[in-house]
Amino acid sequence: MIQAAIFGFGNIGSGVATVLEENAGQIAKAVPGGIHVKYILDIREFPDSPFADRIVHDIDVILSDPEIKVVCETMGGKEPAFTFSKRALEKGISVCSSNKELVEAFGPQLLETAAAHGCSYLFEASVGGGIPLLTPLLQNLAQEDIQSVTGILNGTTNYILTKMERYGADYGQVLKEAQELGYAERNPAADVEGHDTGRKISILSSLISGKTVKFDDIHTEGITKITPADFVRAKAKGYSIKLLGVSRKCSAPDAPAGIRMEVMTAPFLVPEGHPLHSVSDVFNGVLVHGNMVDDVMFYGRGAGKLPTGSAVVADMILAAKSIGHTVPIQWEAEVLETAASSDCTNAFFVRMHAADAAKVHAAFGDCIDQVWSDETDAEFVFVTKPVKEGVFFDCLQRSGEALSVIRML
Amino acid sequence: MIQAAIFGFGNIGSGVATVLEENAGQIAKAVPGGIHVKYILDIREFPDSPFADRIVHDIDVILSDPEIKVVCETMGGKEPAFTFSKRALEKGISVCSSNKELVEAFGPQLLETAAAHGCSYLFEASVGGGIPLLTPLLQNLAQEDIQSVTGILNGTTNYILTKMERYGADYGQVLKEAQELGYAERNPAADVEGHDTGRKISILSSLISGKTVKFDDIHTEGITKITPADFVRAKAKGYSIKLLGVSRKCSAPDAPAGIRMEVMTAPFLVPEGHPLHSVSDVFNGVLVHGNMVDDVMFYGRGAGKLPTGSAVVADMILAAKSIGHTVPIQWEAEVLETAASSDCTNAFFVRMHAADAAKVHAAFGDCIDQVWSDETDAEFVFVTKPVKEGVFFDCLQRSGEALSVIRML
Repeated sequence: MIQAAIFGFGNIGSGVATVLEENAGQIAKAVPGGIHVKYILDIREFPDSPFADRIVHDIDVILSDPEIKVVCETMGGKEPAFTFSKRALEKGISVCSSNKELVEAFGPQLLETAAAHGCSYLFEASVGGGIPLLTPLLQNLAQEDIQSVTGILNGTTNYILTKMERYGADYGQVLKEAQELGYAERNPAADVEGHDTGRKISILSSLISGKTVKFDDIHTEGITKITPADFVRAKAKGYSIKLLGVSRKCSAPDAPAGIRMEVMTAPFLVPEGHPLHSVSDVFNGVLVHGNMVDDVMFYGRGAGKLPTGSAVVADMILAAKSIGHTVPIQWEAEVLETAASSDCTNAFFVRMHAADAAKVHAAFGDCIDQVWSDETDAEFVFVTKPVKEGVFFDCLQRSGEALSVIRML
Repeated sequence: MIQAAIFGFGNIGSGVATVLEENAGQIAKAVPGGIHVKYILDIREFPDSPFADRIVHDIDVILSDPEIKVVCETMGGKEPAFTFSKRALEKGISVCSSNKELVEAFGPQLLETAAAHGCSYLFEASVGGGIPLLTPLLQNLAQEDIQSVTGILNGTTNYILTKMERYGADYGQVLKEAQELGYAERNPAADVEGHDTGRKISILSSLISGKTVKFDDIHTEGITKITPADFVRAKAKGYSIKLLGVSRKCSAPDAPAGIRMEVMTAPFLVPEGHPLHSVSDVFNGVLVHGNMVDDVMFYGRGAGKLPTGSAVVADMILAAKSIGHTVPIQWEAEVLETAASSDCTNAFFVRMHAADAAKVHAAFGDCIDQVWSDETDAEFVFVTKPVKEGVFFDCLQRSGEALSVIRML
């Protein structure tokens, strides 16, 4: 039997406790004797919880108990999660985290601490919630040269975009409904401004490159400017609109020297038939393209108490089975220089006033791939060929004021 | 460096060699020094291959070389693949197989042999081709009580059904095209009669139950009876038709004593919005439902030299990293009794002659869920509620001769 502790008894932490309890029989097949929660660290009391007797407020109670081999960190935020995780690892206790903010900011340091103390730092649940993603990527696809990762990584925004598409509804109205249903936070910025997706694509980019891709270095754009009119135009041509985290190795011969990756978070038009097109509602999907295996997609619930709790428990099992050595994850602290967004290459969907059509033609010329509006239309709607973003925005500036600009997959 | 051998230098075996060669740098990050192919066992010569110098015809050359730690078995068929695999395992050499026929028939015996000799028997590539599936299922979802697995597991039939749907084409005509393109074998029975899917869902069922589900014990139905008319009716209501392997834990209170699983292979109507609905062409998709994580789907190329070769190499890496112990896979030889197909519960889509409508109503009564045809129609088309299959076929017999009977997801 493995003795464990939970740091943070909020939504995910209580999900971890539920999974460990409900599926104890299943877990004991993988870890002889199972995994037992001896302590739960929280500043609050939970007098009505069946776990009330295990609540402690002092981390030293846990760290000074030599029986504890594995903890999960489901506190969220950088501090005290960082300090607590580091102190546990320094004691040789493996830490399994669902905390994307902490992993994005301090992943390499915590991995190094784990390696130095013969234990493991694992964080499957920090990206894609319950979806088995990071472990398959690192283990089952270890033989692949991963060329790109493209993901719907945030359930809240995917829910909002799905409802906007399905009911022709306005962004603000759907956000309000999502907040009432508990799918969106009262302060929704982290989701709708793309920060959550941005942190997750940064983690994925770091894992496939082995170096550090910083969230602060990548272009991050949210969904607040998407309108029902955009969906009408997109749908007419068989496209959906999804908020994507995109990470691609640069293969273009004219890629700036030393730049090996393009990483960004932004809404994209996704064509019918693309595996991410049908990933709807609160579900997440991550498409990985390897040079041998071609496309692989992982799909499931990217959030939620039990799915995310399940992914944390998967890591706890892996940590428990690996006691005495470190589960290797290659992620160096060295920062990887990614392409400036003006050097990234994308195709664009653009809506302009019809009066600007001549200016668009003059500015974009051959870069226009298709015109989606006709001459009776009050708007001039066009899509470009793939083009350097710097060039695109130069041309756009000479074309007048755009009603809408969205990238295309 | 790990010295390895390839048993069988056909399509998959040469894919393994290509992946090991092309991605040697990537693989060396996981296995220090990389994995080197020292021998290739085949009855043929390959004078023009860059691997010509490693071809051997005598397995004893390989088994008597103490340097060999890992082999892949990409021969296909039961013999001599079984004997060769067993002999390698008895020497303590780990075996990684893409051979679903062998795994389905002798999986537990070979796992036992591996465990007895401190090496591993792995077979990720035998189900779902390049898709990371078995390892994530066994490792990342070890904490889950898996309630069902539903998979599009055969690329050939999915290609045929996709073309039939897209172009309203006839089964025979699409099969002929698929054969010309090399997507279907000259003798297509193993694919189109559902045997390939059946073997794969048997393997998956065995892995989630820990006991043996025999292919010979489960109902297996192919796609040869599906017609363009079926697609027209299905599409009008938002359904696609897919050949599925289905494995479900029985939770019904009236399930026969001791019967814990329903397993079958058959075409199913799959509704729009279901994750498997949009898995098209040669792609495979496997939906796993766990009691905590809810739905998870794995998607990718279920066949092909390089994707399947990539999955074999993933296993070779795992075997190489596990030298000295056995990667645990729980699969006992004891046969699990599955529900007779008459005791399985499914909803059905049925096309009858309009003249039989009254008899259908008399026989099925309340079991009819919806009627999809109107009174001017030459056909009477209806779908049932979920019903025991024995009951369904009794009612059908009293209704006249069906033009088409397809299960519904």
